[in-house]
Amino acid sequence: MKRIFTLLLLCLSSLSRSQSNFSADSVMLDRVYNEVLLKGECYNNLRYLCKNIGQRLAGSESAAKAIEWGKNTLQAYQPTNVILMPVEVPHWSRGNNEYGKYTIANKVGSKKKALKTAVSPALTALGGSVGTNGEITAEVVEVKSFDELKALGEENIKGKIVFFNKAMDPMLINTGAAYGGAYPIRGQGPSEAAKYGAVACLIRSLTLANDNYPHTGATRYQDSIPQIPAAALSAVAARQLSADLKQNPDLKFTLHLSAIAYPRTLQANVVAEIKGSEFPNEYITIGGHLDSWDIGEGAHDDGAGIVQSIEVLRTLLALGYKPKHTIRVVLFINEEFGNDGGMVYADSCRAQNLKHIAALESDAGGFTPLGFNCDCNDYQLEVFQSWKPLLEKFSLYVAQRGGSGVDIGPLKKDESDTVALFGLKVDGQKYFDYHHSNNDVFENVNERELKLGAAAMTSLIYLIDQNGMPASK
Amino acid sequence: MKRIFTLLLLCLSSLSRSQSNFSADSVMLDRVYNEVLLKGECYNNLRYLCKNIGQRLAGSESAAKAIEWGKNTLQAYQPTNVILMPVEVPHWSRGNNEYGKYTIANKVGSKKKALKTAVSPALTALGGSVGTNGEITAEVVEVKSFDELKALGEENIKGKIVFFNKAMDPMLINTGAAYGGAYPIRGQGPSEAAKYGAVACLIRSLTLANDNYPHTGATRYQDSIPQIPAAALSAVAARQLSADLKQNPDLKFTLHLSAIAYPRTLQANVVAEIKGSEFPNEYITIGGHLDSWDIGEGAHDDGAGIVQSIEVLRTLLALGYKPKHTIRVVLFINEEFGNDGGMVYADSCRAQNLKHIAALESDAGGFTPLGFNCDCNDYQLEVFQSWKPLLEKFSLYVAQRGGSGVDIGPLKKDESDTVALFGLKVDGQKYFDYHHSNNDVFENVNERELKLGAAAMTSLIYLIDQNGMPASK
Repeated sequence: MKRIFTLLLLCLSSLSRSQSNFSADSVMLDRVYNEVLLKGECYNNLRYLCKNIGQRLAGSESAAKAIEWGKNTLQAYQPTNVILMPVEVPHWSRGNNEYGKYTIANKVGSKKKALKTAVSPALTALGGSVGTNGEITAEVVEVKSFDELKALGEENIKGKIVFFNKAMDPMLINTGAAYGGAYPIRGQGPSEAAKYGAVACLIRSLTLANDNYPHTGATRYQDSIPQIPAAALSAVAARQLSADLKQNPDLKFTLHLSAIAYPRTLQANVVAEIKGSEFPNEYITIGGHLDSWDIGEGAHDDGAGIVQSIEVLRTLLALGYKPKHTIRVVLFINEEFGNDGGMVYADSCRAQNLKHIAALESDAGGFTPLGFNCDCNDYQLEVFQSWKPLLEKFSLYVAQRGGSGVDIGPLKKDESDTVALFGLKVDGQKYFDYHHSNNDVFENVNERELKLGAAAMTSLIYLIDQNGMPASK
Repeated sequence: MKRIFTLLLLCLSSLSRSQSNFSADSVMLDRVYNEVLLKGECYNNLRYLCKNIGQRLAGSESAAKAIEWGKNTLQAYQPTNVILMPVEVPHWSRGNNEYGKYTIANKVGSKKKALKTAVSPALTALGGSVGTNGEITAEVVEVKSFDELKALGEENIKGKIVFFNKAMDPMLINTGAAYGGAYPIRGQGPSEAAKYGAVACLIRSLTLANDNYPHTGATRYQDSIPQIPAAALSAVAARQLSADLKQNPDLKFTLHLSAIAYPRTLQANVVAEIKGSEFPNEYITIGGHLDSWDIGEGAHDDGAGIVQSIEVLRTLLALGYKPKHTIRVVLFINEEFGNDGGMVYADSCRAQNLKHIAALESDAGGFTPLGFNCDCNDYQLEVFQSWKPLLEKFSLYVAQRGGSGVDIGPLKKDESDTVALFGLKVDGQKYFDYHHSNNDVFENVNERELKLGAAAMTSLIYLIDQNGMPASK
């Protein structure tokens, strides 16, 4: 009997921690949206981050300044504490002299001599690429896939530049999935081409826009394969090169990349904490990544996630909210080129036996929020979806399974980990128009959309904190 | 027995017309998205409409050109027929000389003389405003509501300029609702102010952006009230004027508007039709409005809806689809200033006893589609919502009751009309940043988002055509 009673109590307690008190929660969510929309500071914070600090490639001086700024900004809102957590990161620079050029012959009418035209395609080194050490000039072999590369073999590739001309699939409405489909080309393309003796590698930028911005992003050399220089062509330049190759299959492409790798260096995650009042040993982490690529200003990727995460903390404190669980905001370093910050953070939590009940990341751009993806078990999904009526009031329609974020990913080693990982789901149709390019600047972030995302995140964190996120009934 | 059998047959037939054949429909929707995303012409059509024709204020020469363009564009896709339906519209022009100015005194430090500063606030006449007939110079009374105006009364208002400084409510996540809340000020403000003897009227622009674009839009004078000139200040100018009035309550504001009204004139709706193969006497209408305000290019409002509606027709024909019902694409004239096109179209349909089963409008901007609003009865909502699994594949999450569109509205006189009216629901957080301003230009429409909207509309029209939209079981 006593055991049944205990079980009953456990059930009741579990329910009381996961079922929302609809009307109280609804009032609080209104307060959250009021605070963020009317007094939110995330947009001004983003302006400072983008315009006064700018790009923040991990390992760079600028990233160091951003870390300092992040710490000071968080401290000014007076959470329980703010610490820097040391993280070793790579240090790479593209230098300041990268270009491509080639000449085409246009056979016009019946003239005997063809007109020569010089072409300067818009391109930029892939992140982590080696430099060209002077110019590399070679013929170009265009392929769309690794299979095509393999079929051509060493006899057709050796000594040439391989040009992967594969676009993201526009038919995938989830642009993240379209990116995922083209991603292997950027990550593995250079080494795959080098296996057959290619001397350099060009890829079509990973974007759905039809413009002249080249988009960089990490490439990774395989061990024991020669490292060849690799660059991304803009969508326009890729289309033109493809057309030019049809008319001039023997054209010689000259590539110059001034990229250089320096020794790894020490930077830091910024970790701010509000101590929990009821369950101080149970953690909820919110974050984004402070580093960006070195072109543009990293406004959407992921300045937006950074200032939104800070805004969650600011808003909870401004409303005088006392969280039950310990809430952490983490500005992760180096998501872009190895996820060092995310891995160090997860390792540190494990080493200290910190129990995470949930984590939330914003790293899909500062666009209109549509809801959240959740990487969790069935029961947690049920709990999460029971909040849909509260969230739909704010046009947050999506409460579905899906990826969360690269930085918080390591908090869940495998399915036995019961932490529920959430990712802010946004209207991301334009995300890859900006992503990793000179076009990812503050001016392309809309104040209201950014704030709506921060308010959505704060709302979810409040609901998790109030109602818990147990792994089972 | 025979009667029961007939009833049973009727039931079966009703079911077969409203229940989706999931797998066949799913294949067709894939074909639709493929066609629009890979071969869609709506973005190029929008470029032409915005850049080669430009603004299309009803009654203007430019609107006449747009009607001609609409007819030719639709004809080129070879529907069953294209006709022009004459519509009488107003003809108004803002002229080319509108400005405001005032001088403020800044008392700086202990200097005896205040520094005088001239201010030139960004403003533009409201649509339909009378001109100032030379300059009007008067003191300014700032109010936020009609109640405040009433409380001040004639003794405080007579001979002055009334300045309605009311912002759209940022707390309303549905920006259309926020617009609706501020709309009466623009529509009725000038006449309300004139009742108390005001000589002119200024309003804060209806926008959620914090910038310097003034936003025009229709105002309507009440009969037997003196017609006073009325202009919209940009959000920035309104904030500044409000601040300046606090320091300089007696400042004199000079307003010059060169607006002029001409006699009403004859223009036209463009109506293209694909004859139905099974139910040629049952109609489905798709449309947007071809007219725009006279500043900017009417790209989102409603160039987007126009080229998307045309794209629905183009896509169905390009796919060789033979609709069961008669499908019409209507480019309505003069939504902005009286809804003449919408009313003439509905009257014409009634006069000919045409039975509409459904209509769909896109007039919320060319942004990422989120689904559809539906103005329909309970059973129709059920039928519509039964298609959710088909639509959610394309991230169309919203299938809810809600407003459809101004142009198609008159097709449903009252609840006894069984036509189901649909409105494309988009991510409209930025819509009022552009709406009715010089900022509503082609460059602010994203190709992919526009095409996704057209594909969504084509998908819904296909589902309605295939499965019917009966008013009851």
